[in-house]
Amino acid sequence: MSAPSASFSITMQVELADPHGIGAITTAVGDAGGVVTALDVVESRGDALVVDMACNAFDEGHAERLTAAVEAVDGAHVRAMSDRTMLLHLGGKLEIASRVPLQTRDDLSMAYTPGVGRVSMAIAKDPSAVRKFTIKCNTVAVVTDGTAVLGLGNIGPEAAMPVMEGKALLFKRFAGVDAWPICLATQDTDEIVRIVECIAPGFGGINLEDIAAPRCFEVEERLRAKLDIPVFHDDQHGTAVVVFAALTNALRVVGKQMKDVRVVVLGIGAAGVAVTKLLLAEGVGDVVTLNRRGVLAESTPSLDEPRRWIATHTNREGRVGGIAEAVDAADVLIGVSGPNLVTEEHLAKLGKDAIVFALANPTPEVDSEIARRYAAVVATGRSDEPNQINNVLVFPGFFRGLLNVGAKKVTEEMKLEAGRALAAVVTEEELSPAYIIPTVFNPAVAPAVSSAVERVARSSMG
Amino acid sequence: MSAPSASFSITMQVELADPHGIGAITTAVGDAGGVVTALDVVESRGDALVVDMACNAFDEGHAERLTAAVEAVDGAHVRAMSDRTMLLHLGGKLEIASRVPLQTRDDLSMAYTPGVGRVSMAIAKDPSAVRKFTIKCNTVAVVTDGTAVLGLGNIGPEAAMPVMEGKALLFKRFAGVDAWPICLATQDTDEIVRIVECIAPGFGGINLEDIAAPRCFEVEERLRAKLDIPVFHDDQHGTAVVVFAALTNALRVVGKQMKDVRVVVLGIGAAGVAVTKLLLAEGVGDVVTLNRRGVLAESTPSLDEPRRWIATHTNREGRVGGIAEAVDAADVLIGVSGPNLVTEEHLAKLGKDAIVFALANPTPEVDSEIARRYAAVVATGRSDEPNQINNVLVFPGFFRGLLNVGAKKVTEEMKLEAGRALAAVVTEEELSPAYIIPTVFNPAVAPAVSSAVERVARSSMG
Repeated sequence: MSAPSASFSITMQVELADPHGIGAITTAVGDAGGVVTALDVVESRGDALVVDMACNAFDEGHAERLTAAVEAVDGAHVRAMSDRTMLLHLGGKLEIASRVPLQTRDDLSMAYTPGVGRVSMAIAKDPSAVRKFTIKCNTVAVVTDGTAVLGLGNIGPEAAMPVMEGKALLFKRFAGVDAWPICLATQDTDEIVRIVECIAPGFGGINLEDIAAPRCFEVEERLRAKLDIPVFHDDQHGTAVVVFAALTNALRVVGKQMKDVRVVVLGIGAAGVAVTKLLLAEGVGDVVTLNRRGVLAESTPSLDEPRRWIATHTNREGRVGGIAEAVDAADVLIGVSGPNLVTEEHLAKLGKDAIVFALANPTPEVDSEIARRYAAVVATGRSDEPNQINNVLVFPGFFRGLLNVGAKKVTEEMKLEAGRALAAVVTEEELSPAYIIPTVFNPAVAPAVSSAVERVARSSMG
Repeated sequence: MSAPSASFSITMQVELADPHGIGAITTAVGDAGGVVTALDVVESRGDALVVDMACNAFDEGHAERLTAAVEAVDGAHVRAMSDRTMLLHLGGKLEIASRVPLQTRDDLSMAYTPGVGRVSMAIAKDPSAVRKFTIKCNTVAVVTDGTAVLGLGNIGPEAAMPVMEGKALLFKRFAGVDAWPICLATQDTDEIVRIVECIAPGFGGINLEDIAAPRCFEVEERLRAKLDIPVFHDDQHGTAVVVFAALTNALRVVGKQMKDVRVVVLGIGAAGVAVTKLLLAEGVGDVVTLNRRGVLAESTPSLDEPRRWIATHTNREGRVGGIAEAVDAADVLIGVSGPNLVTEEHLAKLGKDAIVFALANPTPEVDSEIARRYAAVVATGRSDEPNQINNVLVFPGFFRGLLNVGAKKVTEEMKLEAGRALAAVVTEEELSPAYIIPTVFNPAVAPAVSSAVERVARSSMG
């Protein structure tokens, strides 16, 4: 079971008839499984007090139980309960700042008319100057159609906004990239492609996000063919690069080679396809992939083109069946599917010194505690477990590198080198079953990824 | 002739064989008509010096003449010359900042996953919550197709970027509105409308900018019909509101009433159409409009729909001919056309206590010094003359008001009330022929415009 977390934290405003009631209400929260993280007295009148108490809870129901527990304390009354996460998002999370002074008329006449006209004419004469004199040099569009937002599904462009704003924050926080959310009110592939093509002049890169498969594959492929700026579907390639980096280090832990291992990829959506392709590009021994109906093989009927490619390039032994058949004696199990799909019986069939990445979020394919009984190395997508496989280790530094060199394309080699560089952030001395991947706050991560991307881009340009 | 300006300022790096040469080079710049604004010694070796000297010039040719004049000074050598305006724009003028803390894991879990999922679900359940929990509440898209950028014409979306970034800066600087440039690589009306419709979920308003007439009319009209956020073509309505405000005060100066005056509008593009419509809405006596071919009348052939409307609602006396016939005994001449179209003979035909707004930029329809010989009140679009008619007096406060109340539409009444509020910023005591409109840095302007828009919006909602 997961712990109470700041992602679900509330503030209760409580009236107390008696100052000694403070101990009673903090105890009540603790007894009900909550964690008090802060307490302020906001009013004091004679004996009576009003306090603001911040607590972490598991979920919405738990927050209500905590409130009820406090209300039940003698002499205590909960005046109001607010959700701190919701409050944090009030008014949105981004704003625009000026990089130039705007205090005087001279400032205005240089930053805007009439001076700006000369800058525009310089770009009209030499279109490549747009990368020099405008925000294009440091700006990425985070584009979604709202069809596959987190694990929430097709919730639409408005509901996708908080996530895309959050993504933009991470771009800035971890790599100084300016990213802007573009949430599209269309789910038509042709329209999405055409819109991104038309808005591209102001952006130095396109980060596609939370677009459902198989549309995401076609959108990315068509945009890559049309645009002269890099296009990167993070759910595919960010995931693939971080999984590849984590697997590189996990194999170092168990002393196996990429070319010798058999990998099972459970879930063949955007992430599963990209992970499989990148592992094949790196020469992994074999991959067996599964969708809801079981193992993909050459004979599997009615697959779309991206999955048909996967089916014909994996499963060399021609396995058939479900998870049980796929994992039999496998070296690696990578879950990019849904909650609780992997059982203890499945784990028991894995080979010796197995590696399990259970990346469904927030609830993994299998509880990590159980997985650790059967596997030598376990990783999840959760921030409250060791070995968190998190895309934020990749996309900020990756785009930093692309923008630094004005790259026009994303290549397989960039992804592999970025993954190797990310893996190499973990030193031999640090490497352990509980530390195969650095934390998101490790300041060496983004520069390592960025340098790798730049190096590949420069060598292919030269 | 205009004065040397910061909009064309350069920095020369000059080697001097002798420290006393500083006086000689500053004198050389002054003698050549330049203005030295700053001077720094950047190297000193024995007797030799290297100095950075910043100077304002008229234009590119003048900057070269200044450089040549310094080079001609005995013992001086110009090592390099850089254009300060171009340097200011290097790397673009905008960046994105975070409105929330992102230092700890708890911060991440509230701003991004898993906490953000709850915010997205709240919006999925109640779509109107997007205005509460996302940047939509304070964000405007500045949309152009690059077809009518400043006076530079159809220079395309890349070359439009510096101007749109500048516009975004002004939104933030004068009214705290977050604006983002969207420069479209299409000039197809249907596509522009569809793209703006599809990107609208993330924005609280659309500012159309520098789109050529007549496309701009159709784009705005169709978007207004489709979207539930306000759409405002600034070249039309920003100009119309500020002209209306300036005319209100100019009429106070000369002691005439709106209903009694005859106004000539020279140039019937986006600005001319909107100015004419707003003045008619305010009950001005009569308006006579002119395009390149002369006065518009009911009989004028082959007009598009917006100009047909103008032709049938103006020119009550049925005048025919050109500028000379239009301005005969007119009270007001408003030029929104091109440089030097109005002659001294035209001005001589104006009525008593005439008002002339010569708004073509940077070169007005007629030199303001000449205009002042014939008119009681003269205004231009230039920042180096009194009475600068500048849209920045309107659009920041206008959108501030729209966003403050979550308005869904822009109405004629909002524009008229905003114009009246802007005019009222100039008190009776301040009012003079040289002060009919406040300066852009007057801090009372944006709040006055914003309050007026909010008041109208609230009354129409209630």
